[in-house]
Amino acid sequence: MRTDTKNFRCDIENGVATLRLDRPDRKNPLTFDSYAELRDWFRDLAADDGVQAVVFASNGGNFCSGGDVHEIIGPLTKMNMKELLAFTRMTGDLVKAMIHCGTPIIAAVDGICVGAGAIIAMASDMRLASPDAKCAFLFTRVGLAGCDMGACAMLPRIIGQGRAAELLYTGRSMSAAEGEAWGFWNRVVPADALEAEAQALAAKIAAGPNFAHMMTKTMLDQEWSMSLDQAIEAEAQTQAICMQTADFTRAYEAFVAKEKPVFQGD
Amino acid sequence: MRTDTKNFRCDIENGVATLRLDRPDRKNPLTFDSYAELRDWFRDLAADDGVQAVVFASNGGNFCSGGDVHEIIGPLTKMNMKELLAFTRMTGDLVKAMIHCGTPIIAAVDGICVGAGAIIAMASDMRLASPDAKCAFLFTRVGLAGCDMGACAMLPRIIGQGRAAELLYTGRSMSAAEGEAWGFWNRVVPADALEAEAQALAAKIAAGPNFAHMMTKTMLDQEWSMSLDQAIEAEAQTQAICMQTADFTRAYEAFVAKEKPVFQGD
Amino acid sequence: MRTDTKNFRCDIENGVATLRLDRPDRKNPLTFDSYAELRDWFRDLAADDGVQAVVFASNGGNFCSGGDVHEIIGPLTKMNMKELLAFTRMTGDLVKAMIHCGTPIIAAVDGICVGAGAIIAMASDMRLASPDAKCAFLFTRVGLAGCDMGACAMLPRIIGQGRAAELLYTGRSMSAAEGEAWGFWNRVVPADALEAEAQALAAKIAAGPNFAHMMTKTMLDQEWSMSLDQAIEAEAQTQAICMQTADFTRAYEAFVAKEKPVFQGD
Repeated sequence: MRTDTKNFRCDIENGVATLRLDRPDRKNPLTFDSYAELRDWFRDLAADDGVQAVVFASNGGNFCSGGDVHEIIGPLTKMNMKELLAFTRMTGDLVKAMIHCGTPIIAAVDGICVGAGAIIAMASDMRLASPDAKCAFLFTRVGLAGCDMGACAMLPRIIGQGRAAELLYTGRSMSAAEGEAWGFWNRVVPADALEAEAQALAAKIAAGPNFAHMMTKTMLDQEWSMSLDQAIEAEAQTQAICMQTADFTRAYEAFVAKEKPVFQGD
Repeated sequence: MRTDTKNFRCDIENGVATLRLDRPDRKNPLTFDSYAELRDWFRDLAADDGVQAVVFASNGGNFCSGGDVHEIIGPLTKMNMKELLAFTRMTGDLVKAMIHCGTPIIAAVDGICVGAGAIIAMASDMRLASPDAKCAFLFTRVGLAGCDMGACAMLPRIIGQGRAAELLYTGRSMSAAEGEAWGFWNRVVPADALEAEAQALAAKIAAGPNFAHMMTKTMLDQEWSMSLDQAIEAEAQTQAICMQTADFTRAYEAFVAKEKPVFQGD
Repeated sequence: MRTDTKNFRCDIENGVATLRLDRPDRKNPLTFDSYAELRDWFRDLAADDGVQAVVFASNGGNFCSGGDVHEIIGPLTKMNMKELLAFTRMTGDLVKAMIHCGTPIIAAVDGICVGAGAIIAMASDMRLASPDAKCAFLFTRVGLAGCDMGACAMLPRIIGQGRAAELLYTGRSMSAAEGEAWGFWNRVVPADALEAEAQALAAKIAAGPNFAHMMTKTMLDQEWSMSLDQAIEAEAQTQAICMQTADFTRAYEAFVAKEKPVFQGD
């Protein structure tokens, strides 16, 4: 994977890619260019074999302040419908690319996490936060609807329909404690331990079995709108595929030898 | 909107309609007539432009005791299948009308909230309760199934599948504290502050952006059974529509002018 | 229903069947034979009229240690795809049989509850646990994916998408306290009260109305992937059917006579 990204920082070490927006003086807003480059990066990830987990990290005490008011909101007020739909589809394509990249994503959220920033956290597979995390789906504050980049579909499944409705209608901030109690954050950790915790979780994921993790991610999306019987048949097929990987045999042999399995991703 | 309703009270002030059943001596049961009139009122609301939020309030310390045993249950035991289906469809049509009315609904629940009363709370977008709220999906107590007016679809998405199953199989009462911890109640507030809190939330919603709120409500329903990719494309279209409203431009201009936006609903 | 089962214990009393795996020295692993016999038993239950509730109980301080490493995992590493799919479909068929058996199932989980054991708990309608319950979807530990027997569809709906993702990617143990806070366990009770609590809940369910309970169970599955409008129409039909049962009339007549209804299941 490219690490020479222009609109966000990207570091790759031991199979873990760490991304972070990089305008900390403005709490890391998104721009047209960073949306597009993030989308492309996650699309490329689907075909990559070297990155096994992604940490979407904070920078300078904040995660992301959402779409930049001057660089995004202003221009949008002047666009025609064709241009607007091209923009909203690009933002949606970022979420689709994150969902379809085949690699578990962990958001590590400190401070401000609003608008499209809240969506990036939501579209990640797991989420850690600091006690200062302030997460708001504040589209309504700029005259827009709560249905942005999949929020009306995804947020209810993470925190429940009633809580999601309140956050999406009011745009109010969800505190770190609320987010942990509601299942939005998998865990709240002190700010100075946040990135280390996220890296430890990412390292655990990256240790594999990575083909199986890719399948888990695929099915967490794929079964969203299946009937239960369809989902059970789909998983019978998926797991049978996983049983023909060498990692499955490696795990069995390690167990018999009373050793810890070393997965290799095939 | 009509306020001369016969089977429930309706007051409209500053764009907020406050409804309440009005037989407090019997804890506000529903009758054939109040079901039908509520359904018609919410259906009319879909075409109305003057009401921007609804508060479904309590009355005399209770929300609703459900279908009246003498006026509803008794007659039902004597009906044929054609008549029964007409009745259950009418009750379902009330829920459909609430979902499709285009206006956020806030239930303010004090005391008894059972049977169809629990359904009305469930079908609202947000729910506040007093510490005395007792909410029970008690259909099983009268020999019926828990699948009433959409409960097997909606309740699991609000509080989770396991908790919903227990409430629907046993008909037991959910305490206010349970309901808050589980996400059924957005907030529990003292009984004497309940209606004021609900009105404050309704006023906040009614301040707009109301076209966008209508779209949020539409999509919270619409995306229920979509795949994730379908939901993301649907929201790209919805949000592009909202970006062509004047309220979006108003919000941007207010931001630039460092003022609070005044939304006008178009 | 047969109680002469070979691969698990089965006792039936007062309409409640109590099942338990019976190799407590090894924490009750599953084998090819116990999977198949459990599947057949739950399939038969769909046509049975004498069992009104099922308790899936623990044995010797543990619920189930999942698929036996020597008797299942080892042979699987040597199978071809046709044989693997036959196995994963058999395990999925156990879940389908539990969902379609028409009878509420209560899991009573003490101690170890992992792998396919966690799935059996998940596929039950309600779940009680002792403070020592350790539940882990540990497929990933043996080189497999989290999508096993419907887990990527069911677990998110019980505890939320974010928590489910963490458990399925990491295979880590969910503590009893976490499981209660997240809605996986309906209630945590002391180990020495666990089975009595589960039996009391089962007795309450078995007291009826059992035709209605069967309909509730049917619709909790059936509405999984319906739109909201479809679900509401489906419930209008279901409830109209239930209104033609004698148990509905019995409940009404008992109410009028100020007695407790005695349901008879028709």
